[in-house]
Formats: sequence, structure tokens, C-alpha cells
Amino acid sequence: MNDRQPRPIQRVVALSGGVGGAKMALGLQHVLPPGELTVIVNTGDDFEHLGLAISPDLDTALYTLAGLANPETGWGRRAETWTFMQAMQDLGGETWFRLGDGDLALHVERTRRLKMAASLTEITADLAQRLGIPAQLLPMTDAPVRTRVTTDIGELDFQDYFVRRQCQPRVAALRFAGADAAAPTPQVCAALTDPALEAIILCPSNPYLSIDPILALPGVRELLRASGAPVIAISPLVGGAAVKGPTAKIMTELGISVSPRAVAQHYGELLDGFVLDARDAASENQLTALGLPTLVTDTLMKTLDDRIRLARAVLDYARTLGNHQEKQP
Amino acid sequence: MNDRQPRPIQRVVALSGGVGGAKMALGLQHVLPPGELTVIVNTGDDFEHLGLAISPDLDTALYTLAGLANPETGWGRRAETWTFMQAMQDLGGETWFRLGDGDLALHVERTRRLKMAASLTEITADLAQRLGIPAQLLPMTDAPVRTRVTTDIGELDFQDYFVRRQCQPRVAALRFAGADAAAPTPQVCAALTDPALEAIILCPSNPYLSIDPILALPGVRELLRASGAPVIAISPLVGGAAVKGPTAKIMTELGISVSPRAVAQHYGELLDGFVLDARDAASENQLTALGLPTLVTDTLMKTLDDRIRLARAVLDYARTLGNHQEKQP
Repeated sequence: MNDRQPRPIQRVVALSGGVGGAKMALGLQHVLPPGELTVIVNTGDDFEHLGLAISPDLDTALYTLAGLANPETGWGRRAETWTFMQAMQDLGGETWFRLGDGDLALHVERTRRLKMAASLTEITADLAQRLGIPAQLLPMTDAPVRTRVTTDIGELDFQDYFVRRQCQPRVAALRFAGADAAAPTPQVCAALTDPALEAIILCPSNPYLSIDPILALPGVRELLRASGAPVIAISPLVGGAAVKGPTAKIMTELGISVSPRAVAQHYGELLDGFVLDARDAASENQLTALGLPTLVTDTLMKTLDDRIRLARAVLDYARTLGNHQEKQP
Repeated sequence: MNDRQPRPIQRVVALSGGVGGAKMALGLQHVLPPGELTVIVNTGDDFEHLGLAISPDLDTALYTLAGLANPETGWGRRAETWTFMQAMQDLGGETWFRLGDGDLALHVERTRRLKMAASLTEITADLAQRLGIPAQLLPMTDAPVRTRVTTDIGELDFQDYFVRRQCQPRVAALRFAGADAAAPTPQVCAALTDPALEAIILCPSNPYLSIDPILALPGVRELLRASGAPVIAISPLVGGAAVKGPTAKIMTELGISVSPRAVAQHYGELLDGFVLDARDAASENQLTALGLPTLVTDTLMKTLDDRIRLARAVLDYARTLGNHQEKQP
């Protein structure tokens, strides 16, 4: 397990959802050489709205990695205007999902290209290149997967639950419609089977909403287990609460204790290492008792420097875990 | 021909293209009682762009009649922003057709409704109502008609000729693809056969590009000839030149003299009356020689007051022409 190498880690795959995961990915992008980071992004949140194909997590990753993200919200673009939304309201159109004027260009252009039979993977690669993103940005699949939320008021489409109803309904279960039949793309499979791969990072996104859809694709868990690179999850909890979003609320509603231990147990035997926040250091003993190596550090990412520092810490930690050809059962 | 009525004219149909025609329609809307004006708009300029259904003349009419038009350009919306266009350029998308952020809402919402099998007529009626337009605004047809321009560099789609190439190619011929099979809508037919109809106005739009597509629909010429209401064209020329757009250039390239007489002769036996600008008064004798009654007045519409004044003058003139059951052959 400990065949340390003198040089820093270069080739990394990160699995990510939206805001929190994208921050981690940005830190990794800054630390790693150009072209060595692959970010595989959840598309379970994708939906069609106003006739446009919208990929919220992929968009957040794109804007974040391009340096265009709105620093206030984490989603959408900086220096955005909202004339479209106002005009749409005047026309009696739907306005519950806020689409900024600049953001619209992405949705219109992607929708146009999808209609011309380009894949989401191809489109994303081209847009990422145009926006100067040095990382490889990959949707988890080109097939439709749609997260559905079973709640006390019935099963809801994800964006209906998440945006329109602001996560207020009580969650009883989650499912990823279409995941069974949605192959991870060849690019995703290639990244995860790359012999040069040195670490697989499960970003501090919501494990249940953002990482699980990726893990639900046929073969992805097996690829992670088969990889020689250590698989490391970063806890999305800081001080026993989620930094942003409904992670803690959902864990509670699903009957899961809101703790790093529960997150680590959720990922289970996929993990070779786990990173938790210093404010949750009391959980470290529980994790060690599970036989899981841990890194305790400051995981809160308020500034770009925070992201870079955390990325360095995680990569240094990954190096201590080393590469191995076959995971322990 | 001269059975004058004491009360002012109430029910009017206007045939219109974009900017110039919409100005005339706005004047008529101000002068006529609510609900008494029907504006039938050219859709030969319509096209799909960036996956969106765009109806340039209908949009200009909608914005103009709603008081939302950009007073500088005549097309698009006032208080517009352009963030979408800038973002589209950054993404490598097509930017030759300028779409403002607020304007986009109309295209996105219309495209969405068309996909849900609403007709352009239904969508336009609903949007016009939401924007508080008292006139009835009708696309000439719900079927696709596409103006094609034969030029010295080959046949071009209309917007390619008009916007992308800024009317620079030399025009040899115009055709309206699909017009043969495109029925005028029941609403268009109803408006033109309304027994209460008192005037049919051919707005000062480009006769060849904007009015001809409407007249090319099967049955429309016959409905105009059969109507008891006088048909009156307003010359788009002022002082022997077009106020805006390529009318004069196209007339020249088609070998037509740039004169009110040529416009009147183009419409031919459809007309019961013709309105020309005072700056072209020298043409009046030629028109009278054709046996066509004329009104000479100031047709230049710079302000709303100009539009109202011209509308009043045209309606007063229509009253002098009177209603008649059958046009002269």
C-alpha cells in the first residue's frame, strides 16, 4: 500500500456533482498539470426546460473550471444579466428555474448541437476547450438518467424538488431513472482504466444526490474497485452540517446520522481513504475503527486558495495511500 | 363608389411586413376602436436559428403594437441587453443574427409552444393579449413559407441575404417557397371576408419582400378583389427613395423604376386607391392617368403623432372611396 513515489501525483479522476464538487475540481485543476485531471460529472439533475437541454451540474463545473462562475451563488455566471427572465414573465412563460442571459447561450447552443446528433460528451469537450479549461470535463453518460425523489407529497422530478420546491418535501427515497440502461461513456471508462491514473477523488458533493447517480451506472463501481489508484472521498460535512444544499436534511430524512462516518459507510468498500474536516475530528476514531485510513484537514473552501490548499492536501494524502493493482475485498 | 357614411371607419385589415408596416399598423391601432384592427403579417422571413423559431416581421409587429419596440432600430425591444450574444460568441456559436436577451424570451417561448403543437396563430394571439395589444395580430399562414432570393451569387435564404449579407448581393428574382401549398389561416380569411370590413390597407412595407408573400398565398388576391372594402396601398417610397431597407435597391436590380407609379402598377388591379408622399406629388398625374384615385400626403412616420396622423388621413381617404360589393374588373 505504501510504495511512495518521489514525484507529485499527476493523473487524477474526480467524480463531482455541482457547486461543492466543482470547487474541489477547480483546486485540483490548479494543482495538476494541464490535461491530467478528468472530472466526471453527474447528469442525473439534467432536464429539459423551455425546450432547452439543461445540465445543471455540468454547467456549474464548466463555469467553475473556466473561472466564469458566480462567486455569490456558486451556480450560474458572474456578471450575469436577467432581461430574458423578466421578458419571459411578461409573456406568461415559466420562470421558477432562473436562467441568466449569458447562461442561456450555453443551453441554446448545447440544445442546438444535440439536435444535430452531437453527443453531450462531444459538446462538453468542445465548449470546455473554447472556454480554456485545461481539465477533461466529462458527463457521466450520454444516455438520459433522471434523478427522481420520492417524498411525502409523491415522486418528484429532481428540479421540481430541488429548485421549484426548494427541497421542502420530506425525502423517503431516491432513484436514478434510466441508470440501469445508461452506459458510462467510453471516455469515462478510459479515464477510470488509465494505467497512469494515480487517484480517484469523490468530491465533497452530496453523496446521495450527486455521486450516487454516477456510481449507479453499470460497471462504474467495478471500475473503481478494479483501479490500481486509491479511491478517496472528501466528506461534504463540515462541523456536522452541510456547507451548502440539502445534504444534512436528506440524510436525516433517510434515517442516516449526519456524520462523516455515515458518509464513509455509504461509500463502503469503494474507499481506500477518507478526508474529513478538522471540525469533525472527533469522528476520526470511528473511521479508523472501520479500518479506513483518514486525513483530517480544513475542508471548507471559501477562496480559491482554500481550494488549492485542499487539493494539495488530498493529493499528498493519495500519495501516501499509493497505487495497488487489486483492492482488498 | 361614393356612398359616404357619416361615422368614421371602424373595421380595418392591414397587410404588413416589418418596421415600416408596423409603424402604419400602430397608427391605425391608435385611431381605431379596440378590436377593430386586424394586422395580417408576412411570415416569409421566418426561419429557424439556433434551434429557435424566429418570425422577424411578426415580432416587429408585436413589439411595435405593444409599445415595446426599440425606437432606434425599429426591430427588437427597447431597453434590451446583449449578454446572451456575448456569451454565444465566447462559446463559438453563431452571432450574425442579433438576438437580444429580452427578445430571446419570445423565441424560446414560441418555439416551446410550437413543439407542443400550438399554432403560430394561437401563440401570437395569446402573446398579443398578454402584452396588451388591442389589435388582432395574425400571421398570414400557419404553414411554412420561406422567401428565397435569387442573386448573382446564387439562391439565398432570406435572412442570409437580408441580415448576414446585408442585402449586398444583386437580386435577380424572388420566390416564396411553400406559398403554393400554404393556406391563409381561417382567421385571415374571416378577417378579409368580414361584411363589416371597411378598408384593406397595404402598409408601406417592401411590396416585393413583405407584401407579395401574403398575396402569394392561394386565395388571398381573390379575397381582396371580392371584398366590398376598398383596398388602399401606401407607397413605401418617400422622395423617390425607400425610408428604410432595400426596397429601392431591389426595384432597381429587378429593372423596375423606383417610383410610386411602379409600386401601384405592381399591385395592379388589386387597388382601389393609392397613397403617396407629398415629396412624390409629381407622380400623381401618372397615377391618375392609370385611373387610380390617389391621396397625396406626408407619409414619413418619425413620431407616434406622424403615425396617427397618417392613419387618420388614410382612413378618411378610404371613406371617400366607399364600400362596394364587387370590384371593377
